[in-house]
Amino acid sequence: MQKMKPRTLSGFMELLPAPQMQMERIMQVLRETYALYGFTPLDTPAIEDAQVLLAKGGGETEKQIYRFQKGDSDLALRFDLTVPLAKYVALHYGELSFPFRRYQIGKVYRGERAQRGRFREFYQADIDIIGDGSLSILNEAEIPAIIYRAFHTLGLDRFQIRVNNRKILNGFYAMLDLTDQSGDIMRTVDKLDKIGADMVRGILVDDLVIEAEKADEILAFIAIRGTNEEVLSALEGYRGRNELFDLGLDELKAVTQNLAAFGVPESHFAVDLTIARGLDYYTGTVYETTMLDHPEIGSICSGGRYDNLAEYYTDKKLPGVGISIGLTRLFYVLGEQNYLNDALPTAPADVLVLPMTEDLAPAIRLATELREQGIRAQLYAEPKKFKAKLSYCDKLHIPFALLLGEDELKEEKVTLKDLRKGEQSTITTAEAISAIKLAIWEAGQGTVIRDHT
Amino acid sequence: MQKMKPRTLSGFMELLPAPQMQMERIMQVLRETYALYGFTPLDTPAIEDAQVLLAKGGGETEKQIYRFQKGDSDLALRFDLTVPLAKYVALHYGELSFPFRRYQIGKVYRGERAQRGRFREFYQADIDIIGDGSLSILNEAEIPAIIYRAFHTLGLDRFQIRVNNRKILNGFYAMLDLTDQSGDIMRTVDKLDKIGADMVRGILVDDLVIEAEKADEILAFIAIRGTNEEVLSALEGYRGRNELFDLGLDELKAVTQNLAAFGVPESHFAVDLTIARGLDYYTGTVYETTMLDHPEIGSICSGGRYDNLAEYYTDKKLPGVGISIGLTRLFYVLGEQNYLNDALPTAPADVLVLPMTEDLAPAIRLATELREQGIRAQLYAEPKKFKAKLSYCDKLHIPFALLLGEDELKEEKVTLKDLRKGEQSTITTAEAISAIKLAIWEAGQGTVIRDHT
Repeated sequence: MQKMKPRTLSGFMELLPAPQMQMERIMQVLRETYALYGFTPLDTPAIEDAQVLLAKGGGETEKQIYRFQKGDSDLALRFDLTVPLAKYVALHYGELSFPFRRYQIGKVYRGERAQRGRFREFYQADIDIIGDGSLSILNEAEIPAIIYRAFHTLGLDRFQIRVNNRKILNGFYAMLDLTDQSGDIMRTVDKLDKIGADMVRGILVDDLVIEAEKADEILAFIAIRGTNEEVLSALEGYRGRNELFDLGLDELKAVTQNLAAFGVPESHFAVDLTIARGLDYYTGTVYETTMLDHPEIGSICSGGRYDNLAEYYTDKKLPGVGISIGLTRLFYVLGEQNYLNDALPTAPADVLVLPMTEDLAPAIRLATELREQGIRAQLYAEPKKFKAKLSYCDKLHIPFALLLGEDELKEEKVTLKDLRKGEQSTITTAEAISAIKLAIWEAGQGTVIRDHT
Repeated sequence: MQKMKPRTLSGFMELLPAPQMQMERIMQVLRETYALYGFTPLDTPAIEDAQVLLAKGGGETEKQIYRFQKGDSDLALRFDLTVPLAKYVALHYGELSFPFRRYQIGKVYRGERAQRGRFREFYQADIDIIGDGSLSILNEAEIPAIIYRAFHTLGLDRFQIRVNNRKILNGFYAMLDLTDQSGDIMRTVDKLDKIGADMVRGILVDDLVIEAEKADEILAFIAIRGTNEEVLSALEGYRGRNELFDLGLDELKAVTQNLAAFGVPESHFAVDLTIARGLDYYTGTVYETTMLDHPEIGSICSGGRYDNLAEYYTDKKLPGVGISIGLTRLFYVLGEQNYLNDALPTAPADVLVLPMTEDLAPAIRLATELREQGIRAQLYAEPKKFKAKLSYCDKLHIPFALLLGEDELKEEKVTLKDLRKGEQSTITTAEAISAIKLAIWEAGQGTVIRDHT
């Protein structure tokens, strides 16, 4: 028979068992963390009506989308989890209670040019809080706490949540009568780190034809740095010149002032006026999260406040705030940068049960008992040499083997082999169970991410 | 702005928050159960190269598949989890250890005609054990234990695992020199329950032109019923007439004899010679699982032993055994038949924290403390009337509200409102935490499925 060469499409992540275990662990931490803040899990289809998905239109997205016909239907794979959420909330509006808090961890699809570390199928892990008509600023203030707890629980310490408010930016440009040009200005200012202040000023004055005085104001504004207190105090200097600005400043202060009560250390949070989040979509607080030792990776968790989640589907005003973790890319980066804690168990089982008698029943009963105790036990009955069996155990990093031969049966004991220590002892089943449980507990103590500090 | 009508495609399940919580719980039980038997989680792409996915060819599948072009690529959405597993094992063969045990819970796609209870996007929850060259019969014997524990843990009691062996069927037809017609015969015999023995005999003799004597042998064979012991004993009567038959009988006995050691009650297991599983694919033990009170639903967990998992990709002989639960359909049926236990919590939070003071910090600190204790706490700061706040709590079935006003702060206490009992008391935070934890524990005791018994 002619064989087909097996291959996985480029841009599609397919993990081996050990890293997959780590990925599962990360997802579990995120699910548990999101749940602690009252978010309910949702799961929407990966395929939607293309018209519904593309209601917003938009160039780049449309080019990248996987769109196809099936019968008479014009279908598309979702390219994010926000548009499906907007559809969901508009569709099920009458059956939901607001504020509606949902998390969703799901695959999305973008046919980007394939390159290292870029994926065409990738997980996003999103949370959003949707209000009906209005939404308290407290929800925006809570987001940094969720980001902090998620990464902290994963084991990352060297990261910082950067926050800004679009009303401050928009208000500032309104003060200078530069609202129409604010998009161009922000794109230019974004290059500050790369090209320096002089070049930025040059582009502002020469290319965007902005008065020198205003260009200097812009440069002075984005140069505001320091502790959160210092930045907020500098911003107070602009108060009274624009209503939107003042409102944004109040919001930023509300987000900042309760950090300690929310359990976010000052060290992990920074007011940063350079954060704008490209999308016009955001109207208030915006968030980015960077790894201090890997700024080149960019933001690993971003989002913000928006005024109208579902405006393409409904007249109802549904303001919200949300953040998204690009999980597949983050996982790739963590692996590349050696951040994944390989001390955590990745074995498919805690113990390999090796029957050594012709009658398999005693070994099966032992495995059944282990499972009833919550121990992951694999029965291994392949007719291999003893050495091959232990080598299998070793390759899979299964920490224990349990041997059950005629001698053990006679004594009503089992032989527990600890492969990590290279020790073995013949003990009672109860003693073996205790030893295995203790080892499971100890091995599970670490975090998924091991910071380099 | 022109609004787009929000809609979800027909044949695609999209759950409201409460049923979604139940679905998540079912998935969690399956993950934990599969893990107890040494299966490692896998996650493969939903999109594959169409050529790779369709290596096997085959009419019905090809018609139902979602296939599309993107750039130069001929792509398709997976229609099951077995073909991607075959590709995975062939591709990563050198990096895996055998027997390789994996579970996968993932969405698959089939563009079937939409009808009630049929889905175009649906979850399958699969386990497979793949051997390299050979695989011990013990693996086949273990499968009923996994099925039993999964459904038992979910809370289902009224179900039965039915088992047969293809070698017995094939061996039996070989005895009668009817191997070439065995497919047609089995399809006819499959109608026994619907059309009765006389009609079946008629078709066998008239349409399939089988000698009357052989037709009688077939009818006698498929009429073998009784306890497992009775069926096995009747089968012994055929021993010695065909090697394949004898091998199949040995296998069936091996699967049956260790049931008790595997923890499967005799009541939940039946040797059933009418089970064939349509696919040519299966070569040994085959499994079906039926709900005793809803035979019309058909099998809720099926599978079997196969000889060559990846024959389209590799010359390596990779025998295996696997089962699959059609999770989306099962969930739909459980809901329809009122099997889902609505006493289990479906609220997004265990407690709603209601700040009653201008300074929000004390309420935020309280919520932070609850979360550190593992309690799912939602802060609610919308400027609504008190009654509206409690009504929100009630609608979401959040069992507790915690009120924190000036009085409570002065006393260093909190007011805990138990919405289920309609009681409230002003107590210390520690007391409130204990009361909530106890209630969480109690509420979590039930199983997802509530049998009608």
